[in-house]
Amino acid sequence: MKIIQSFLTGQWIGETQNTLLKSAINGDLIGATHAEVPDFNKAAQYARKQGQQALMQMDFQQRATCLRNLAKYLLEHKESLYSLSRETGATRNDSWIDIEGGFGTLFAYASMGRNQLPSGNLIHADSAMPLGKNNDFAGTHILVPKGGVAVHINAFNFPIWGMLEKFAPCFLAGMPCMVKPASATSYLTEATVRLMHESGLLPEGSLQLIIGSTGDLLDHLIEQDVVTFTGSAHTARLLKNHENLVNRSIPFNAEADSLNAAILAPDVSLDDAEIDLFVREVFKEMTTKVGQKCTAIRRIIVPRDIMPQLIDKLSQKLAKVTYGDPDAKEVRMGALASIDQLEDVKAKIAELSQNCELVYSQATNAKGIGCEKGAFIAPHLFVNHQPLTHCAAHDVEAFGPVATMMPYDSIEEALAIAALGKGSLVTTLCTKDPMIAAKMIPSLAALHGRLHILDAQAALESTGHGSPLPFLKHGGPGRAGGGEELAGISAVHHYMQKAAIQGSPTMLSAVTGEYVRGAKVIETDIHPFKRSFESVRIGESLLTHRRTVTEADIVNFGSLSGDHFYMHFDDIAAKESQFGERIAHGYFVLSAAAGLFVDPGVGPVLANYGLDNLRFIEPVPIGTTIRARLTCKRKIDQGKESKDGKPQGVVVWDVQVTDQEDVLVASYDILTLVAKDMVSTH
Amino acid sequence: MKIIQSFLTGQWIGETQNTLLKSAINGDLIGATHAEVPDFNKAAQYARKQGQQALMQMDFQQRATCLRNLAKYLLEHKESLYSLSRETGATRNDSWIDIEGGFGTLFAYASMGRNQLPSGNLIHADSAMPLGKNNDFAGTHILVPKGGVAVHINAFNFPIWGMLEKFAPCFLAGMPCMVKPASATSYLTEATVRLMHESGLLPEGSLQLIIGSTGDLLDHLIEQDVVTFTGSAHTARLLKNHENLVNRSIPFNAEADSLNAAILAPDVSLDDAEIDLFVREVFKEMTTKVGQKCTAIRRIIVPRDIMPQLIDKLSQKLAKVTYGDPDAKEVRMGALASIDQLEDVKAKIAELSQNCELVYSQATNAKGIGCEKGAFIAPHLFVNHQPLTHCAAHDVEAFGPVATMMPYDSIEEALAIAALGKGSLVTTLCTKDPMIAAKMIPSLAALHGRLHILDAQAALESTGHGSPLPFLKHGGPGRAGGGEELAGISAVHHYMQKAAIQGSPTMLSAVTGEYVRGAKVIETDIHPFKRSFESVRIGESLLTHRRTVTEADIVNFGSLSGDHFYMHFDDIAAKESQFGERIAHGYFVLSAAAGLFVDPGVGPVLANYGLDNLRFIEPVPIGTTIRARLTCKRKIDQGKESKDGKPQGVVVWDVQVTDQEDVLVASYDILTLVAKDMVSTH
Repeated sequence: MKIIQSFLTGQWIGETQNTLLKSAINGDLIGATHAEVPDFNKAAQYARKQGQQALMQMDFQQRATCLRNLAKYLLEHKESLYSLSRETGATRNDSWIDIEGGFGTLFAYASMGRNQLPSGNLIHADSAMPLGKNNDFAGTHILVPKGGVAVHINAFNFPIWGMLEKFAPCFLAGMPCMVKPASATSYLTEATVRLMHESGLLPEGSLQLIIGSTGDLLDHLIEQDVVTFTGSAHTARLLKNHENLVNRSIPFNAEADSLNAAILAPDVSLDDAEIDLFVREVFKEMTTKVGQKCTAIRRIIVPRDIMPQLIDKLSQKLAKVTYGDPDAKEVRMGALASIDQLEDVKAKIAELSQNCELVYSQATNAKGIGCEKGAFIAPHLFVNHQPLTHCAAHDVEAFGPVATMMPYDSIEEALAIAALGKGSLVTTLCTKDPMIAAKMIPSLAALHGRLHILDAQAALESTGHGSPLPFLKHGGPGRAGGGEELAGISAVHHYMQKAAIQGSPTMLSAVTGEYVRGAKVIETDIHPFKRSFESVRIGESLLTHRRTVTEADIVNFGSLSGDHFYMHFDDIAAKESQFGERIAHGYFVLSAAAGLFVDPGVGPVLANYGLDNLRFIEPVPIGTTIRARLTCKRKIDQGKESKDGKPQGVVVWDVQVTDQEDVLVASYDILTLVAKDMVSTH
Repeated sequence: MKIIQSFLTGQWIGETQNTLLKSAINGDLIGATHAEVPDFNKAAQYARKQGQQALMQMDFQQRATCLRNLAKYLLEHKESLYSLSRETGATRNDSWIDIEGGFGTLFAYASMGRNQLPSGNLIHADSAMPLGKNNDFAGTHILVPKGGVAVHINAFNFPIWGMLEKFAPCFLAGMPCMVKPASATSYLTEATVRLMHESGLLPEGSLQLIIGSTGDLLDHLIEQDVVTFTGSAHTARLLKNHENLVNRSIPFNAEADSLNAAILAPDVSLDDAEIDLFVREVFKEMTTKVGQKCTAIRRIIVPRDIMPQLIDKLSQKLAKVTYGDPDAKEVRMGALASIDQLEDVKAKIAELSQNCELVYSQATNAKGIGCEKGAFIAPHLFVNHQPLTHCAAHDVEAFGPVATMMPYDSIEEALAIAALGKGSLVTTLCTKDPMIAAKMIPSLAALHGRLHILDAQAALESTGHGSPLPFLKHGGPGRAGGGEELAGISAVHHYMQKAAIQGSPTMLSAVTGEYVRGAKVIETDIHPFKRSFESVRIGESLLTHRRTVTEADIVNFGSLSGDHFYMHFDDIAAKESQFGERIAHGYFVLSAAAGLFVDPGVGPVLANYGLDNLRFIEPVPIGTTIRARLTCKRKIDQGKESKDGKPQGVVVWDVQVTDQEDVLVASYDILTLVAKDMVSTH
């Protein structure tokens, strides 16, 4: 008997069998969870100590690189996972979502980390703001590693993606985690964690795996820890009430299944391409993963007058579904994840039947080997004729290929029906009319985590109703659990602690590792543009020589740029304007400032690739004498090279252009690429 | 008998007395809460309907203006509140924090709303990102009004500020609220709500007041509602477990009192100015509001070798405190808020005494009238000689003028002692050394909501350890409740629902009210710069004529700007560079683009005041032919006027500069002020 093992405190644990795990396809024994009860307190402490320490020996940029390498390694070893994934009842397409969708999430977070996170292990989340008139006291926000462990409790339907979509931002944040997959499909999570460890890429203690029960783990969590949960709304409630989590205010993030909807807007007529797109989307959501997605469409809200035709179209598509052993060529839909799930779905179908009319169900059409032993079920389509008063379809979720169609008579009614889901992960609105989208989406958004607008253009590239994306929020209010997984870098923030800091600008600079205006600067004899990436220091600063802006400058700049705006050239209009006189072009001030601080010769500064937060604060009339202060504000080592192979880093410079009275006339950040001294070892 | 009344469903309710409310100074009867039990379900529905409707007839900008006007009105009527505030035991200075601190928060949110929120009632929280190669499908995030009601349950210590710091962001978000102050000081909240209603400025149903119990209110809340709580950690836990809140995933934000610390860093010696600043800060936090602030310093963590001197210095200051009736001139410290609080603080002092040494307590020194009847107590200073093992001072909070000093031997020990608070709102670190701040602050931040770094420079303008500021996070992890009040615009987001939206760029533009790249543009014969603020439409677009970039341009631009960077002027070095040839200055491209799209004559565009997100995407070598597309991206009506009195609005333009192959070479947003057609009615 193969024992599916936990990986805790650096060891694979489990020799004795506990719960038997069976193939969803044919009931064959795959293995068993283990009976040994680990010391969860010790494992949590190990994470907070060894795991945290190992993660902190890297920075955001290095962990991002590590995620990318992990993803590459997993991709090279994917086939062993595909063959195991079949046992969960998944077709090759279903498995692709779980396996390569999961790896794609690692790649996505690797790239987000690279592009959006700093060097080091602290995020300066804000621009420091003066809190007094003289800027002796300022405030800002930072995010820091919590120093605790994240416990991820996952659902059975995505044993790989479900783990990786939480692991990726958590790892990037520098937080070690303990992953507990649902037992039914835990063998696939175990296989993935084995690969990840075999890669040799994971820092010690950064990822632990719990097979079977979490035992007393939650009792041992402390204020710096975090718990995330994906699964049923019922279990989410139980965990939310856990005494230790409540008493210590341990952040608890829940993502529960929900009664997601698809709405066909009233502007779409039977002749439109959108009709078929809508039916196809609903069909896909009913049958992919045998409808076992927390995002699957359960409620189909359509205009009353065309409902009969829509039932026909959808039923015709469903009739073509062959379900059975995924190895059989003609099979389009596999099995539910377990016999338990099959029983549950049947019970829910019975509940729905009391309230709704079953308008389509395939006679048994199972193909392939051993269907009689597997967790197979046909697609079921119900109709709820009185959706505003008959509520089963808004409350009962059959977690299988089951959906209910409902008619509406007006946009307001469609919105009211959707709202009866009491909070959902996602709804698709199918419309051709931007004005209808503009009306319906904000109203729907009050009760949703994500909204998918489907039309012929979007369909060309749409990733679909059911696919959470790493860059976008996943999680919805109310019944959907109120949590938020994914959503780009904000998922990373979820695993960090945000704090306001107040103090003198010099102190804020030291803490954030970024120059804060008003902080003491470092004036040196060497032009800061002559410093390599490694040697230039935060706060290193150059106060330039001065330049008097003349009428000739304005004339020449207008002639060269072609910008003859009246404020620069029409003395009469300028006098009548709010400024009362001709002023220099803002872009001239910007260009002249560059002329003041640029070091012309070949040096480590390779390119100025952008500029942020430019504000022209005061007008610059003829005769103004300007100068610039350029200060090294931020350094990010992304471990990148220039096109011609030079290792380089990003340096952001704070620029302040002042006039002869030291009044700030222009303010901005410039972004440069600066060469390193030596070959990158990144 | 004066009955303190609730204001619900547009009416003042309460004729029959329930709990008697007494002056903290002399025990005189002030009034009574009412015995009538309101229909809370009806009141919540009224908020969601009338309140929501009235709020949605305004937009963010108009609600910001309304907040400012409310603050002005309250400021004009502040004196009646000061005389009532005395009854809570507050000195004039204490009252100032509650009363004018509260109004200041309204002003601050008014200004944040003005400057950081859009027109309309939807926030586009992100930049839309393409989700496919051809940008037929894109994604972004929006925030929308939830459509529910916020229930604010507040503490007794700040009856006015406590209400207004939550009301301000909630109102700005467009969410009606029901405020429940702690009964003991509810007469002051009632008086303020009466003023707010008398102002005639509040939209109907946007603010309701509950005096006494909230009864069955929480049972009637729905998924779109929100509950916030400020008070004891114990009550926070009870509310967090409330069945209906858990079942419906109703967001619950708790801000509890905590064992806040002040740490004197080891670099500060007895000769430094920072010693007295530290003692002064601790003294202030112990005595202001008689120590009844959730942010007050309870734990004073100091180097062991100078602890005796610090005890002396602090005791000497405490000895000078005269407490008693605030009307008496010499009084520096008033009374606790009630006799109940006095009993509670005495009990906690007894608990602390078992574990810590009482090193200072004034003999009774009460001055003024009726002190024998009031809730007066002397300052108490304890020492905990073994802070790592004796834990009372880390667990027991005496909510009065009580603090405990603790010695440490190393920085690591100081951090470990601070962490025993298990999550706090705020800690002050007093140090002269930026490197010590850089080491200690990130570690402290893992368990804090806010950190205050005190040195001689910061002290010149510091708002103090104990003052939450509207722009910065207020709320801490763990024992402090895990919530977040304030923190600038993110407090507004707390009262809105965030959703991801996906669809074609045209759909995303329609929903967000902002031009999204790839959306259909509106090409017109009229130059968009000739449109007034009202008439220019989102998506209105100009594709300019072209311009070929020549060597002469580069030469002229270098000569004029003074920027002779080798990439533009040194053919040899440029050939050896990653670009392989001389390229035009980025700022020339920017200037030439302005020359292509600027309309030179007098028109509605008054000024270009800034530029965001500029990226030079591809190099522009000699011979490149560029053109620009300028598209109206966003409009914000802040109801402002130019210096010479012209009503104007903000228009943001998307600019794309492309080359002859239609490849994007530069990309940015420009910010302009555009005149309105007619006089503002804002």
